[in-house]
Amino acid sequence: MKILLIGATGTIGKAIAAELSEHDIITVGNTRGDYQVDLTDAGSIAALFGKTGKVDAVISTAGSIVFGPVAELTEAQVTEALDGKVTNHLNLFRVAKDYINEGGSLTLTSGDLAQNPMPGGALVSLVNGALDSFAKAAALETGAALRVNSVSPHFVKETMEMMGMDSSAGISAADTAKAYRHAVESTESGKVFDVPDYI
Amino acid sequence: MKILLIGATGTIGKAIAAELSEHDIITVGNTRGDYQVDLTDAGSIAALFGKTGKVDAVISTAGSIVFGPVAELTEAQVTEALDGKVTNHLNLFRVAKDYINEGGSLTLTSGDLAQNPMPGGALVSLVNGALDSFAKAAALETGAALRVNSVSPHFVKETMEMMGMDSSAGISAADTAKAYRHAVESTESGKVFDVPDYI
Repeated sequence: MKILLIGATGTIGKAIAAELSEHDIITVGNTRGDYQVDLTDAGSIAALFGKTGKVDAVISTAGSIVFGPVAELTEAQVTEALDGKVTNHLNLFRVAKDYINEGGSLTLTSGDLAQNPMPGGALVSLVNGALDSFAKAAALETGAALRVNSVSPHFVKETMEMMGMDSSAGISAADTAKAYRHAVESTESGKVFDVPDYI
Repeated sequence: MKILLIGATGTIGKAIAAELSEHDIITVGNTRGDYQVDLTDAGSIAALFGKTGKVDAVISTAGSIVFGPVAELTEAQVTEALDGKVTNHLNLFRVAKDYINEGGSLTLTSGDLAQNPMPGGALVSLVNGALDSFAKAAALETGAALRVNSVSPHFVKETMEMMGMDSSAGISAADTAKAYRHAVESTESGKVFDVPDYI
C-alpha cells in the first residue's frame, strides 16, 4: 500500500513508519521527510499531492496543541489551537480526498483528552473532540470510497519522558502505532480508535 | 435565580424562558431581548455584563451552524462554522466566568450530531463535538465555583416544521428546555446533557 505519512518525523510518526514498514511509506514533515508541507495552506497540500500522485492512505499525526489554565484563556490561544489542529486538518481533508484511491483511507489524530480531560488541557480537549466528531460525520458521506477515522492516542511514554514527567502510565509510541495499522488495514470507517484497544 | 439567557428569542431560547419562568430571566439576543450582544466580540460581552451585573447562571443557545456536503467543503465554510459556534462561545466563557456568582453555572448548547452525524452535517458535528469536549474539560478546572455543561439538543419539532421537514421524530422545544432546567438546577458539572434523558 502507498501511504502518505504526515508528521512522519515526530515521536508517533516515526513509530508508525516502523510499524508499517512493509508498506511503501512516503514521509512528510514541516521541514524534514521525503516531502514538506504546510497544512495551514491548502495550496501547499495540493502541491504535495501533485508530487506524490495518488496514494492508498493518508495518515496525519501533525499539528500543534495549546496547553494553559482555562481561567486565563486568551483569544490568541483559541486561534492558535484551532489553526494548530482543526483548520489545518480540514484543509488536509479537502485536498486529500481527491488524491486517495477508491477504498482508501484518511486517518487523523485526535487524543484521549477529548473524552478524559486534564487540567490545563481544555483547548486540547476541544480540538480533539472536534476532529473525532468531524471524522465520524465525514465518513458518513464519503462511504466506501474513502474511509475516514481518527486515532485517539493517550499520553506517549517517550513524550512524557522528554517533558520530564513520570511516564509509568504512558503508552509507548510503538504500541500507539498499532492503532494506526488498524485504521489503515481494517475496513472500518467513521470510528475513533482508542489506542489501548489495539495494543 | 438570576439567569442570563443568550439566544433568548430563538425557538429553544423562548421555550427555556417559559420553562424557567419562576426565575429572574434576563433575555439577550443579537437584535432583540432585554439586552443585545455580539458574541464574536469579547468587548460586547463585557459590556453586556457591565449592564446586567453578576448572575447565577448563563445559558447560551446562540450561534449559527453551517450545513453542506463534505465533498464540497470550503475554507470559508470552516471559518464560518468555527466563528458561528466555537470561538464565540469561548469568548463567552472567557468573559462570563468572572460574572457568574460562586457556585453558579454556564450552560452551552451543542447538539446530538456530535455523536450521531447526518449527511451534510460534518461541520455541525465538528463544532458540537468541540463544545462538548471543551465544557467537560473546562469544568475540571473551574470546580465547584462554576459548573460548566453542555446541553445536546436533538432536532427540534418546531424547527423541522419551519424547514418543511417531517417533524415526527423531532422533540418539542418545550421538552428540549427541560434539559436546560436540569443544567441550571442540578449540581452536575462537566456533563453533556442528552435531551431525551430529561423529558
